[in-house]
This record gives sequence, C-alpha cells and structure tokens, in this order.
Amino acid sequence: MTGKTGLRIGIDVGGTALKAGLTDGEGAVLCTRQRPFDGPCGPERFAQLLAELARQVLEDGGAAMEAVEAVGIGIPGAVAGGRVLYACNIALRDVPLEALFRRRLDLPVYLGNDADCAAAGEYRCGTGRGCRDFVAVTLGTGVGAGLILNGRIYAGLGAAGEAGHMVTHPGGIPCTCGRRGCWEQYASAPALVRMAHLAERSRLDAGLPSPERSGPLTDGRAVFEAARRGDPAAKEACARYVEELALGITNLINLLHPEKLALGGGISQAPDELLLLPLRKLTARACYGRHCGKTTELVRAELGNRAGLVGAALLKDVS
Amino acid sequence: MTGKTGLRIGIDVGGTALKAGLTDGEGAVLCTRQRPFDGPCGPERFAQLLAELARQVLEDGGAAMEAVEAVGIGIPGAVAGGRVLYACNIALRDVPLEALFRRRLDLPVYLGNDADCAAAGEYRCGTGRGCRDFVAVTLGTGVGAGLILNGRIYAGLGAAGEAGHMVTHPGGIPCTCGRRGCWEQYASAPALVRMAHLAERSRLDAGLPSPERSGPLTDGRAVFEAARRGDPAAKEACARYVEELALGITNLINLLHPEKLALGGGISQAPDELLLLPLRKLTARACYGRHCGKTTELVRAELGNRAGLVGAALLKDVS
Repeated sequence: MTGKTGLRIGIDVGGTALKAGLTDGEGAVLCTRQRPFDGPCGPERFAQLLAELARQVLEDGGAAMEAVEAVGIGIPGAVAGGRVLYACNIALRDVPLEALFRRRLDLPVYLGNDADCAAAGEYRCGTGRGCRDFVAVTLGTGVGAGLILNGRIYAGLGAAGEAGHMVTHPGGIPCTCGRRGCWEQYASAPALVRMAHLAERSRLDAGLPSPERSGPLTDGRAVFEAARRGDPAAKEACARYVEELALGITNLINLLHPEKLALGGGISQAPDELLLLPLRKLTARACYGRHCGKTTELVRAELGNRAGLVGAALLKDVS
Repeated sequence: MTGKTGLRIGIDVGGTALKAGLTDGEGAVLCTRQRPFDGPCGPERFAQLLAELARQVLEDGGAAMEAVEAVGIGIPGAVAGGRVLYACNIALRDVPLEALFRRRLDLPVYLGNDADCAAAGEYRCGTGRGCRDFVAVTLGTGVGAGLILNGRIYAGLGAAGEAGHMVTHPGGIPCTCGRRGCWEQYASAPALVRMAHLAERSRLDAGLPSPERSGPLTDGRAVFEAARRGDPAAKEACARYVEELALGITNLINLLHPEKLALGGGISQAPDELLLLPLRKLTARACYGRHCGKTTELVRAELGNRAGLVGAALLKDVS
C-alpha cells in the first residue's frame, strides 16, 4: 500500500468508455482503469458504475480511501452545484450525481464538464501551465471549449464554453442543438470528411482524375494523411477546413483574448503545415488584439487523451 | 466643503466629450462636469485634459483631494497595466496614461475599457446588481460588450469582449477591424438604418407605396419610431435587425452563459415590442442552455448614459 496522501481520483465519462485514474496532487497519474460504457443506464446505475471504478483504481494503486482528497468526474454535458443538469448522450437530466456517488463511496466529489476538465488538465499539467487565462478547444466528433479564466474554470450558469454552438453560417447546415450553421458543423472531424467528399465530387464532376489512395477518406486522420501525400481533393478540403477553424478561433479570441488557446482532440494531431501553421497565419491577420500588440498564442494541446482524466482529478483546485 | 471620504472620480472618454463625475463609494453621483473633446491630441495633452477635469469636478463637489480614494478612466480602446494599449479614435498607442495622469494629479488611477466600465456601472448600480456573471452589450455606432465574470471585469490580455468583431456573416460587409461580416456590421445603429433603406428601396422597386413620414430614417430612433407607427419598410428592417441581434446574442450566451445579459446604448431605448420581446423569443429557442433549464435573463440596461461614468468611478472594486 502506498504511503502517499493527498491523492485524487479522476473519472472521464466518454461515449464508449469510462476511464478512471489515481493521481497525486499535481496530476501525475499513478494508475488507470477503464471499462466499456454504452451510454444511458439510469442515474443510480451510472453512479454505481462510477463508484465501482473509483474503488478499483484505489485498489490497483494500493491506496487507502483516507488518502484520497477528492474525486473529480468529467461529464459530457452541463453540471452545476453537484448536479448533472443535462447530458444528452448519456440521457441524464437534473441528476444529483454528487449525492448518488457519495452514497456509494463517501469522498468529496467535484463535477465538471468534459471540455472544462480537458482545459483544466492542460492548464495544470500541459500547455496551459503558467497562464492566467487559457482556452482549450477540442476538435473531434463535436467541437467544444473549456475556459480557464483568472485561473479557474469558468462555466457560467453551467453550460458556458459551447463554442461549437456559435453560429458562423446563418441558415447553414442544421445542427443537433436546433440551430443552423453552428461552427461545429464546419470545424468538427465529420465536417472535414464532408469537405473532402465534396471536393472529390467536384473534381469528378469536372472530369479531373482521382488519385490512387491507400484507403477511403473516412476520418480526419485519413484526410490529413492524403493531403500530406499531395491528394488534391484532400488538400482543398484541409485548406477550406482551416479557414472555417480560423473563423471560429478568431471569434473566440476576440471575445476572450486569452494568453493561450490550445487545440486538442483527434484533429489536433494533424501535421503542423496543414493545420497549426496556416491557422496561425489566418488568425494573426484577423484578431482584434493585433491592434494592441497582445497576441493570443495558438498551440497544440499536450496531454492527448489524458487531459480529461487529469483535469477531472484536479477539479478541486480549479473549480 | 463636503466632509465625505472614500469618494471616487469617474471619467468617461467619449467620441465628442469628456465627462467626469464625483461619486461616493457606492456610485451615487454627487456632481458632474463635461467638456467637448474632438479626439486625437497627443498623450501629454490628453492626460492634462483629464487631470484638469478631475480637479474641476473636485472643486464643484467641494471635496478635498485627500477625500478621493480612486480615479477611474473609461477609454474607448484596450488597456492593461496602467497603459492604453490601443485606442483607435483618439489615436493613442501604448501610452502610460496612469503615470502621465499622476504626474498632474497624484491619485490612485484605474483604467478600463469603456464597454467594461458600462458593464461595471450596471453591475454595481444597475440591472446587474447581485449577479456573479453579467454581460452588458452596447448597441450604438458600434457594438461592444463588457464582461463581468465571477464579479470582476474580465479583459483577458486587454481586448476581451470585442463581441462586435465576431464574424457572423463570413465574406459579408467589410468592417473597420479588417475582417468581413463582423456582427457590428449587422447589429449597430447604422446597420439598422441601412436595413431600413434597403427595405424601402425594395418596396419602391416593387412599385409599393411609400408612406408619409415625419422625417427621414436617418438614425435608429427614427426607424423604431416609424416601425411603431406601422411603416412597412421600417417594420421589416426592425424584424431583420432583431434576427441579427439574436444571432450574436445567442452566440455570446452559448459561450458565456451569464445570469443576465443587458442591452445598452441608443438602440436599447426601442419599444419593448420591437426589440426586447421578439429578441427574448428568438434567443429562448436557440440558446444551448435551454437544455439544462438555466436561462440567461435578457434585460435592458438601467443607467443609460451614466453607466460608463459610474462604472469608471467604481473600477477599483471590480478590476
């Protein structure tokens, strides 16, 4: 049994898996545990799954319950005051998760939105270290942002940071949120794939040759990979995608003017010359802050998949 | 001579006038002084004008310099660390205004952006009282926002809250900031006037009759007044304008999810049935927060022209 105290448990609730990690007070991961999770299962069962996973990771780490200072849970939805207000994909609405969890495992519980947890992880242990104001944008199936303002997670009434649901194309593509033309519909991984298919279709319609490919352009990685090899449709799509990304990122910077803005999620793994470098160029000439000589630094997130778990573990310190 | 202590001086730097006010520590205005101001005059002269005005308002109020706790100055531009980083209309760039002012009048000086000062005024003495997170949007010649987050002005690196320079129509109307399609080009008073002229032109082109009017539609007030009387082109323009307003307001709410968002500036004086009521309807069905049952309250600002001056006077407490 480890003699450490001040330990944390972070739990990351994802679309297909629940991940838990035991960390020290600085976010260093001591051990992790994962189990499959296929979404809606009711509040009681959900709390039960989380508590079991927390117990397991404690056992794996050889730690006593008394050594744990806090459990943090990252939820794909809005949270406030120990409650899950709304989490669409796991079908929870106004659930007193803190209380349900503590009935099974009586430890101090902190709830956070998953994008906020990712931002908190990067802020404490990744590229956001040392910033006062820091924004982490996650580019994946959807687009979300976590806001660290004045060194704390900023959530407003519970659902702040819904950057993906800022409309950038009025009357545009319908979004799951009910609006049309949300940024998410132009800056997510599926949007990039859609742009690649459209570019390919126009090339075919124009009678242009289709290059040989090692596989179909079914995900963001494949599109970037094809573009890197010179595939014209993929290159066109990447250029268009970066423009859409720059549009929303510039909007965010003009509103929040943080020291750093980090890109995370699957898309952020793209080669610099296809993503980060052209993005920096486009935002540098559009951001309002250029007038006053204070520029938000655009960087790639550092922690990858672990950001959410680490951030959840450290929620106590940044909430 | 008043026996009060803990007094404040607030100075509001506008496009055509400098206004100063002496207030108590709660923002109650004891007396004001105003002088014309026609913009660029150089840093030294600018500081001189401000210091003179502060002295005059002290004299008017019969207050001793020792009774003044702080001077706050609201600047139409970005400020940070006692410096004006950038103020386009008064042609200041990286000016150490705090130092220049104190050389003439040695009192503690706080600088704020003008939209932030308006928000601070409403937050402490107007419709934002009691909120933790509060946004004030000013709709006038331009569009700006002041953000009070966690009870403090949030300015990021100095230029946060530039909501008017969030692009809502990519490739749209060119903006003074260098982008195209900024929200300001669709939600400012000149935008409303433009929409009225366009609506009138289409009606004329379609051979529809032009109603008699008491005067031309040259400002926001005239358009709302004509719409109130049933003028079809003005009504059409107001409806279009409210849609554009709702688009940006919803974006702001989805990003910041504050308790309240207040509309200020000349446009906010419009009749409720033409502005606030349809705006509430449109945002209510678009805001992401509706899913979690926590709704940002949309209200009209209460302090009118005085918000900036009062907020400047109270900068010390909300910076």
